[in-house]
Amino acid sequence: MLGQMMTQPLLISSLIDHAERYHGQTEIFSVETNGTVTQTNWSEIAANARRLASALTKLGLDPQDRMGTLAWNTRRHLEIYYATSGAGYVCHTVNPRLFPEQLTYIVNHAQDRVLFFDATFIPLVAALHGALSEVRHFVLMGSRDEEALSQIPGLQFYDELIKTGDADFEWPSFDENTASSLCYTSGTTGNPKGVLYSHRSTVLHSFGSNTRDVIGFSAMDVVMPVVPMFHVNAWGSPYACAMSGSRMVLPGPDLHGEALVNLIDTYGVTLAMGVPTIWQGLLAHAAQSGSKLTSLERTVIGGAACPPSMIETFRESYGVDTVHAWGMSEMSPLGTTNNPMAKHRDLPIEAQRKLRENQGRPPFGVELKIVDDDGNELPQDGETQGDLMVRGHWVLDSYFQLQDQDLLQDGWFATGDVATLDPDGYMTIRDRSKDIIKSGGEWISSVELENIAVAHPKLATAAVIGVPHPKWDERPLLVAVRAEGENPSEDELLAFFEGKIAKWQVPDKVVFVDALPLNATGKVLKRNLRADFENALAG
Amino acid sequence: MLGQMMTQPLLISSLIDHAERYHGQTEIFSVETNGTVTQTNWSEIAANARRLASALTKLGLDPQDRMGTLAWNTRRHLEIYYATSGAGYVCHTVNPRLFPEQLTYIVNHAQDRVLFFDATFIPLVAALHGALSEVRHFVLMGSRDEEALSQIPGLQFYDELIKTGDADFEWPSFDENTASSLCYTSGTTGNPKGVLYSHRSTVLHSFGSNTRDVIGFSAMDVVMPVVPMFHVNAWGSPYACAMSGSRMVLPGPDLHGEALVNLIDTYGVTLAMGVPTIWQGLLAHAAQSGSKLTSLERTVIGGAACPPSMIETFRESYGVDTVHAWGMSEMSPLGTTNNPMAKHRDLPIEAQRKLRENQGRPPFGVELKIVDDDGNELPQDGETQGDLMVRGHWVLDSYFQLQDQDLLQDGWFATGDVATLDPDGYMTIRDRSKDIIKSGGEWISSVELENIAVAHPKLATAAVIGVPHPKWDERPLLVAVRAEGENPSEDELLAFFEGKIAKWQVPDKVVFVDALPLNATGKVLKRNLRADFENALAG
Ligand SMILES: Nc1ncnc2c1ncn2[C@@H]1O[C@H](COP(=O)(O)OP(=O)(O)OP(=O)(O)O)[C@@H](O)[C@H]1O
Ligand SMILES: Nc1ncnc2c1ncn2[C@@H]1O[C@H](COP(=O)(O)OP(=O)(O)OP(=O)(O)O)[C@@H](O)[C@H]1O
Ligand SMILES: [Mg+2]
Ligand SMILES: [Mg+2]
Repeated sequence: MLGQMMTQPLLISSLIDHAERYHGQTEIFSVETNGTVTQTNWSEIAANARRLASALTKLGLDPQDRMGTLAWNTRRHLEIYYATSGAGYVCHTVNPRLFPEQLTYIVNHAQDRVLFFDATFIPLVAALHGALSEVRHFVLMGSRDEEALSQIPGLQFYDELIKTGDADFEWPSFDENTASSLCYTSGTTGNPKGVLYSHRSTVLHSFGSNTRDVIGFSAMDVVMPVVPMFHVNAWGSPYACAMSGSRMVLPGPDLHGEALVNLIDTYGVTLAMGVPTIWQGLLAHAAQSGSKLTSLERTVIGGAACPPSMIETFRESYGVDTVHAWGMSEMSPLGTTNNPMAKHRDLPIEAQRKLRENQGRPPFGVELKIVDDDGNELPQDGETQGDLMVRGHWVLDSYFQLQDQDLLQDGWFATGDVATLDPDGYMTIRDRSKDIIKSGGEWISSVELENIAVAHPKLATAAVIGVPHPKWDERPLLVAVRAEGENPSEDELLAFFEGKIAKWQVPDKVVFVDALPLNATGKVLKRNLRADFENALAG
Repeated sequence: MLGQMMTQPLLISSLIDHAERYHGQTEIFSVETNGTVTQTNWSEIAANARRLASALTKLGLDPQDRMGTLAWNTRRHLEIYYATSGAGYVCHTVNPRLFPEQLTYIVNHAQDRVLFFDATFIPLVAALHGALSEVRHFVLMGSRDEEALSQIPGLQFYDELIKTGDADFEWPSFDENTASSLCYTSGTTGNPKGVLYSHRSTVLHSFGSNTRDVIGFSAMDVVMPVVPMFHVNAWGSPYACAMSGSRMVLPGPDLHGEALVNLIDTYGVTLAMGVPTIWQGLLAHAAQSGSKLTSLERTVIGGAACPPSMIETFRESYGVDTVHAWGMSEMSPLGTTNNPMAKHRDLPIEAQRKLRENQGRPPFGVELKIVDDDGNELPQDGETQGDLMVRGHWVLDSYFQLQDQDLLQDGWFATGDVATLDPDGYMTIRDRSKDIIKSGGEWISSVELENIAVAHPKLATAAVIGVPHPKWDERPLLVAVRAEGENPSEDELLAFFEGKIAKWQVPDKVVFVDALPLNATGKVLKRNLRADFENALAG
């Protein structure tokens, strides 16, 4: 016997319909590629999305064709998100910071039929368009630009294209399991792999992220996703904020500390999201400029381990609560968020703070377990570490165009991360399995050592890698970037670890570099560091 | 092309699995029928639910059989919720305050095969069991009781029954649109009608209610649903709190002010939910006892219009934020909740407060519109009132066993309420269409008059009804209950309306009664009042 309730498919178009109907006048502030700020709102975003959807269908594309984007967080990008998925196409966000060969590979592999791109990327597209053999329509996200046209034959212009569309376009209805968007992983550990999200998984993920103990966007919030819309859909915020009717500030191309602080102060941002490296710049600028980030209430930090010292700075200097989050492209991305429980209310304040440092616990919709090398489940005692496995409503089943590979193990996806879980499900990421340092049969967490190192006032940032060692197989090496105007000694830095971890875990050596190699999403490329310093402890 | 994401059905069993796995030690405090308090937790609730599910399947019931409950908000009731739906049966909560004939009708109409009941209802079931012809198993929710057994032949005992079940029972998997639970409407306007919820609608409703701007239960919360579990599933809180892992306080049979204030103060309740009549008693006792309700942060008030004076008292005297909510059995029940938007931050505080008085706006998942008598949509201008229509993921499609009736109009369900909607979707319920007062071609909102009347310090409560009038068709009559020790005059009360509404809307007359007739969910039975005072203005 079935229930006697209305059944409507969970479609992305219903998110923008909701935002238009109930939050139409709620503002979206968008920094354009030229640095100016455009003010629009959910109602205009929705109307333009329908216009674009209508225009796209007139181009005679096949249902479910992929539409690539090479774009910053801007209003047009937001419109493309809703237009493409809403009309039944697949929105494929491409990371423009990838190397040209990787980028070409991905656009071709996805068989993108349309490629939308911001003016910033005219030179890039001009150089690559010949190689992007599947693309039929190159669309510059702006008004007519004759010079660009001279470089890219047949170039179309977003502002003209949407005029050919109809704002009365009606969103089609279809199976909620239909593919909605495609995103490749960051390529930190190898070549990026495609994750093909569905309408259902996206709407359920939005529900999950809007629950109070995950992110809990509110119509009271002014949300600034600093995490790019080409990086796991800005952690789903363009969808979740339509669901909640939040005001949004889309920061455009300039993600330096100064620009971000200005946006926060000008538009009263209450909630900002991004990876730790972004906040380093922001905090440095805020300290220097004296901004108190008055409006900011919460930050969501993830994508890489958030050092406790950063959480502390946000709390102590700015009264900002940090929600430490863990996730991955394969998880849409939200896997865990660190929010407290009722029983923690009675703990001493220091203990409460300590508990907020780890990557948090899973919301309803996500399950975690840790296993040993043979796949046996390990205890959730907060001590035992193991390979982290996940499953849930917004976790991938197989990579794009690799349906045939048996990716899952008994229904679970192996994350490649090594973690501990405590009895309440609070997770601490010890390391990526590829980065963990194996010293004399014991494992050393590079994340733990980095969290200590970056708290040193004379360092700007740091990474720890395992390098080959004649006796111990591997030993930790601290790769350090000095803070401006500082010149710490090796001894001084190594002494800083004393008392904070066991002696045998202290790095063997420090090397200084001017900057760490970062990948296209701002994550440290440890495989590059390992190659560079392979012989650092060779004896 | 389908997305490449895991797909799992949205099942109620996954809610209790989540609570067990990630909030197993989180406490549930349950007041038993004898007044003692039992402390249990999500893990024990889950284990007992599995035991009971296993025991039920051994009874040889048919899949999808209905299991009736006549029970207060207690831990066993919570276990029954999860056991029955989890195993694939339908949990049918019956309102024990119904008249015996109504109750018999409903249990037979639903064809309940099992009837669980609290000790409170032994006399009731002893009297009725012969008439409950479809029931095969009567189960007393407690331990063995020889005297009860002597009154109800074949009686089984909950605590014995679950021992026959297996805690290792595995929840079956099935279509998420399968029926999960059944609840009849309150019978305020006529005979109760059954609403048959599905697993999918229930889980989506839980997601919706856990979003920050709806109720947003948190694992930090200590939640006390005062609204009964036999009234639209305590507004879904037993499901939503498993999803969020909240601590719960289940208040059992005694819902008087004193008992509730004690529970709040003893268990540190942060969030309580109920109908306005319940809070009247609670506020009266708190004032008298001097309790400051220190732990309480939020109340959710709905089921009938919450008078602004109540919101004010909670705010000014107790620092409690009230979320005014509107819903109905047909909507699982959440339809709207009053939470603010970013643009309201800049309004003067008085204007902000004013905005919090109405029934609020719909979350993603619910759509509202108002229509005229011909079904034409009316403007959302905050002024125009019309018949309220709804649709959404957790709205009914047809009443139980009335599949054949064409209930919906073009996919929308007619609520029977008359409302205004403002441009942001904030709704003000003007009245039920059956209660609105039609005076000389103009409509007068009884709700508006009642909101004024109950703010009068010399009244305990009041209702306004339309009574036949020789000239104007209908005119408003104020039916007033004096506050203890007070003796207001008619003139004094009518003068209280002056300046607050147009002159022609002021009631013609006041009649004093000792108490208002309430139905089984604590709502005023205006049809009884109308019958009693039919001739009050006859000339
Ligand atoms: N809060 C966090 N703490 C530690 N690590 C994190 C955190 N959040 C994310 N990560 C890391 O980021 C990974 C997910 O990142 P993403 O999906 O962007 O691609 P990637 O794993 O960096 O790239 P690729 O899979 O292509 O190598 C996680 O598996 C984890 O290793
Ligand atoms: N916040 C509120 N303000 C005003 N009225 C409300 C509010 N919340 C609920 N209601 C009223 O309660 C109704 C829903 O109640 P419920 O489903 O419990 O049964 P009922 O309508 O009272 O009974 P029946 O449908 O059997 O006559 C709504 O249609 C509305 O009239
Ligand atoms: Mg990865
Ligand atoms: Mg009704």
